[in-house]
Amino acid sequence: MADLLVKDAAQLAYYPDYDAKEPQFISGGSLAIAEGKIVALGETREVVDAIQRPQEVIEARGCLVTPGLIDSHTHLVFAGSREDEFVRRMAGESYLSIASEGGGILSTVHATRQASEEELTELGNARLASMLACGTTTVESKSGYGLDMESELKCLRVTERLRELQPIRLVSTFLGAHAIPPEYKADRGGYVRLITDEILPRVAEEGLAEFCDVFCDAGAFTVQEMETILLRAKELGFSLKAHLDEFENLGGVEVATRLGVTSVDHLSKSGREEARACARSGTVATFLPATTFHLGESDFADARTFIEAGAEVAVASDFNPGSAYCENLSASIILSCAYLHMRPREILRAMTVAGALALNIGDGRGVFKEGAPADVVVWNAHSWNYLVYHWGVNLLKRVIVGGKVVI
Amino acid sequence: MADLLVKDAAQLAYYPDYDAKEPQFISGGSLAIAEGKIVALGETREVVDAIQRPQEVIEARGCLVTPGLIDSHTHLVFAGSREDEFVRRMAGESYLSIASEGGGILSTVHATRQASEEELTELGNARLASMLACGTTTVESKSGYGLDMESELKCLRVTERLRELQPIRLVSTFLGAHAIPPEYKADRGGYVRLITDEILPRVAEEGLAEFCDVFCDAGAFTVQEMETILLRAKELGFSLKAHLDEFENLGGVEVATRLGVTSVDHLSKSGREEARACARSGTVATFLPATTFHLGESDFADARTFIEAGAEVAVASDFNPGSAYCENLSASIILSCAYLHMRPREILRAMTVAGALALNIGDGRGVFKEGAPADVVVWNAHSWNYLVYHWGVNLLKRVIVGGKVVI
Repeated sequence: MADLLVKDAAQLAYYPDYDAKEPQFISGGSLAIAEGKIVALGETREVVDAIQRPQEVIEARGCLVTPGLIDSHTHLVFAGSREDEFVRRMAGESYLSIASEGGGILSTVHATRQASEEELTELGNARLASMLACGTTTVESKSGYGLDMESELKCLRVTERLRELQPIRLVSTFLGAHAIPPEYKADRGGYVRLITDEILPRVAEEGLAEFCDVFCDAGAFTVQEMETILLRAKELGFSLKAHLDEFENLGGVEVATRLGVTSVDHLSKSGREEARACARSGTVATFLPATTFHLGESDFADARTFIEAGAEVAVASDFNPGSAYCENLSASIILSCAYLHMRPREILRAMTVAGALALNIGDGRGVFKEGAPADVVVWNAHSWNYLVYHWGVNLLKRVIVGGKVVI
Repeated sequence: MADLLVKDAAQLAYYPDYDAKEPQFISGGSLAIAEGKIVALGETREVVDAIQRPQEVIEARGCLVTPGLIDSHTHLVFAGSREDEFVRRMAGESYLSIASEGGGILSTVHATRQASEEELTELGNARLASMLACGTTTVESKSGYGLDMESELKCLRVTERLRELQPIRLVSTFLGAHAIPPEYKADRGGYVRLITDEILPRVAEEGLAEFCDVFCDAGAFTVQEMETILLRAKELGFSLKAHLDEFENLGGVEVATRLGVTSVDHLSKSGREEARACARSGTVATFLPATTFHLGESDFADARTFIEAGAEVAVASDFNPGSAYCENLSASIILSCAYLHMRPREILRAMTVAGALALNIGDGRGVFKEGAPADVVVWNAHSWNYLVYHWGVNLLKRVIVGGKVVI
């Protein structure tokens, strides 16, 4: 007996398995769920024959049904907002001049350090609710606005608390190496040692993060500093990620893929060599077009070169208060089509299966198949192509996480 | 006695009058409404003292309150959707090759001609409901997918019926000169005469449109054809508009402003000369960044040149099935900031007061002042700057049209 039947979708998107490069679409498809998992999917008649008396039916006539979106790169936990700085920046003021007056990332660090765990939890909770209402059912959350032992642990504990508050699934990443904190401005090495010798072991001990990430770029951490931090994180059992080539190509992708990172993210200044390194090593290349867009830039990353090289390509929101204040991953669908030149099926994969791979998720999430967790979105759209084409409004109709109807 | 009090807004945006270039912002402001009009606005204490016992109070604590948005350029009434064509175009296929197979604008013309008045009304009604839910309280609606007497009249009658179905306010525009219909491919002059001698007089007689618009560009109508059509429309008492300089600058802005058009729209290929012509003649320059964005282009119009020349600048959605399938004008806020380089106050004006001017609306809509119609939006945002900065989600909380709470 099925708990839930999602019935008669105009289009049902699924993957035969993780290895299938392209999703398949069934017209007039249905999906049956029992005990939180998908138990049958296919043409409506076949599914209805295979199960008996579903307890609940969601009519999906005229609708598109897809796996819940997986947003594999966000900076979820922070306090404060930086709209006035954004407005100054868009009016032509330089980021450096804003940062020199205490603006930029350090203004968020200041506000986040000041905020209580309760305040941060409330903020994070509202953001997760909004993400879920936009179709995201799994989201990665990075720390990185604390930049000291106490504040980084506080942010990671907030992420733990948020797991209890929202049905959305969370993956936690430690990003102590997001920026050099003001108190270490004259002692970069000291901050790197604080991370490797004190904070990372404590985060590992408390089991507060699955991933360790480093922001390696001009103005952030060097390739060597990244290597030092990621090697230590690897020893401690973390999976690895790196922010790379957003502002400058420092050659970090080659190094990161050799270290065995699960994903390399941003890649605005990457090219064929980096694409080949990802394809060779099986590293997921994660693009964040919302950041380029938010800042009004035109040099969108060259995702096609990665796709053509055979790399696994994910797209994530990069939700953060400085350069992408948009928690809605589905807003990046049109960006991926229009500015990353990705085909609709590639975009769907990038926000489902590839997102799961970027987060080392192997439980079948992102794939509709028998036995996979039932994370499902029903959209007011008759096809995935239509969802790409009709942008700027939220076409979400229903959300199911782990077999439970949450919206 | 007030019917309604919108109370304690974190920020209340208003214009002292139409001529005030920039909106003003009151922190902790309130707004009182009676008989559909604004009767008081200012700091909460002053407003509360000025009125007595409001029948209803909307708490706006923590919220931004603005005039309802005015979307002065949309192609609202059509049937069919063109997502597959869009996907092919984004994959590199040329518009010409798609059009030669019956795609492009003529596929919408075909579907619209086939559709009944009831079908078109149902489609338009759903689109208007969505626009209202995104904060638009006045919208212009163009015909232009009928391209023959019967079908153009059908679309304009649909617009009339929609006025009864939705609280959103409508302005109707006749755009018979949107494209040369297939049956006149070999006889352009014949189609221009059909418009000037038959359709326009009939539209005037039936009072079905306030404006007459012409699409003057490469692949559409020539400057001379535009002049012929607009002169005839002027004789018949229509106000005038023109689509200009989207693909090529044919010199039409100069001609249109001399003819006394209320607005010139698109202007992607316009420059200083066109800006000066608008400023000199008082013609509203209407920018449509959603179109450039939807097609993944980078050559956004040069709105700053128009602003600096002193022209009145509006921003509209250009909602249409070919190049901007987004009925949400507020999605163009971030586009105007990031890619048209407009300042937040300029954007607010462009979507309220300037939208009203582009539609010859003189009843005070778009301006919060005593005596103006009470079209009001309450946003889940603490400031207008925050609404610019936090994009990709619908932050709308309440909508009031003519003093009635409709959302």
